[in-house]
Amino acid sequence: MARFGIIGAGLMGHGIAVALAQGGHRVHVHDRDPATLGSLDIRVEKALRLCGASEEESSRARDRIIPTPDLPDALRAADVVVEAVPERLSVKHEVIAEVEAVVSPRVPVWSNTSVLPLTDIGSAMRHPDRLVGVHWWNPPHVIPLVEIAPSARTAPELVSQVEDLLGALGKTTVRLHRDVPGFIGNRLQFALLREALHLLQEGVCDAATIDTVVRSSFGLRLASVGPMENADYIGLDLTSSILTSLAPGLSASSGPFSCLNDLLADGHRGRASGQGLLPWPLDRGDEVARRLIDGVRRNL
Amino acid sequence: MARFGIIGAGLMGHGIAVALAQGGHRVHVHDRDPATLGSLDIRVEKALRLCGASEEESSRARDRIIPTPDLPDALRAADVVVEAVPERLSVKHEVIAEVEAVVSPRVPVWSNTSVLPLTDIGSAMRHPDRLVGVHWWNPPHVIPLVEIAPSARTAPELVSQVEDLLGALGKTTVRLHRDVPGFIGNRLQFALLREALHLLQEGVCDAATIDTVVRSSFGLRLASVGPMENADYIGLDLTSSILTSLAPGLSASSGPFSCLNDLLADGHRGRASGQGLLPWPLDRGDEVARRLIDGVRRNL
Repeated sequence: MARFGIIGAGLMGHGIAVALAQGGHRVHVHDRDPATLGSLDIRVEKALRLCGASEEESSRARDRIIPTPDLPDALRAADVVVEAVPERLSVKHEVIAEVEAVVSPRVPVWSNTSVLPLTDIGSAMRHPDRLVGVHWWNPPHVIPLVEIAPSARTAPELVSQVEDLLGALGKTTVRLHRDVPGFIGNRLQFALLREALHLLQEGVCDAATIDTVVRSSFGLRLASVGPMENADYIGLDLTSSILTSLAPGLSASSGPFSCLNDLLADGHRGRASGQGLLPWPLDRGDEVARRLIDGVRRNL
Repeated sequence: MARFGIIGAGLMGHGIAVALAQGGHRVHVHDRDPATLGSLDIRVEKALRLCGASEEESSRARDRIIPTPDLPDALRAADVVVEAVPERLSVKHEVIAEVEAVVSPRVPVWSNTSVLPLTDIGSAMRHPDRLVGVHWWNPPHVIPLVEIAPSARTAPELVSQVEDLLGALGKTTVRLHRDVPGFIGNRLQFALLREALHLLQEGVCDAATIDTVVRSSFGLRLASVGPMENADYIGLDLTSSILTSLAPGLSASSGPFSCLNDLLADGHRGRASGQGLLPWPLDRGDEVARRLIDGVRRNL
């Protein structure tokens, strides 16, 4: 079992900690915000309960997660460092400089970025060969996929180490041949989201209707048959004919996305503010969290 | 119970017949190709078996489906006509002219088009107010969603009739405010497919990896939480920041799609030819059909 140091105790940081601790690893978690670090144990407990862990499993996993207010303390004994701080390049650079000042050059740094190019994150590093993109999906202790993106400078043996370690955790890993922003999964789901916003904008339907359509049609099969297999299944001739006919009318927008910007300008941020694309009465957040986990587990 | 006349006994036509017959309706099915009509009963039986219908249910449904070689015979007593012929405007026009020559002006015509604008399909009709887009998903007797798209000339009461009839069948209906090619669901899934082909083209990963990513990440939750609810759930501020960052690099292609065209030029059509984006050994087609139905039913 390895010793991990995670920087960032937010949504992804705490979920990665749970996934690693459930696999028997020892995890020090640091966050520069004392409140975020202070709520870590409660959130860890809730995450374990939601995914159906027993009291005993839960207690064992929680014992392995150590909130650590001091960054060097969190990293001093780490075999692997996980960077899970917000997606701003300046923040990533700052944190990674602090990491390199503490740990030896042989300690790998896994970046959980999903949108920033690895090469940019590593540009200011003394040892960029130790940096690799390791992108988990939320919630990390439930969703099997982890995308691995080496930059052009990543040491090749590092990628195999990540695959072995995650494989032993029961994760499904895929390796990108090239480092692209959004990796594979986020590009696909944001391509879908862009078209959904386009349909709203064009007055074709409302937001709730879009969710009804997805949940009652192709959303029912994407856990069992992926888009490539489905294209072959219905036939590439039919696929090509539909795509060729639809593509010129699909959104090609590179932004701005006014229906999101208008909501944000009015203070509507979704779940957190009580209103977003859909209304969020008080209990909806917890209901969605449960529905999400139950729905995912049904398909595992 | 109503009497239906379906024109087109292919994949969608036979599936719609099964869905209607399971709901107690009597369905005459016509196809201009004797071979397609000749294999109807075998395909109906297989469709019912795959979705787990009992011997008795299956036999009752099959009794209600009558293959009818003569088009006027199929439509003479119909309360509703369903057009499920190939997606070519000239074919649709030809068939609809034959329909209008046989049935009274008060009989509605449901078009199962998914990519042609309703207005274009109805342009040559004597009574375009009777035409409405009623788009089923494959397999129609299993997938709950039916998208209803009125054209600007569709009689409003016709839409409510369709909703009532499909609601009684246990279907989930959505109504589009505007007739757009691809309706809602196909636009969304083809926006995703376009980006998937872009990732292949750019050498980021292979086709099997794309399916692994979708099936092991967001594909696990799309049956329980749709894209709009998910955007609100993670926060519109984060959603907007990721989308704004990714959108300029997402595919905006309006075609041609060379990785499909290259395969088709080499005779690779997917399942039917034994090779497509993925290899199709002999038993893969049946295995996928079973996996698809099982996966969908798990989420219903």
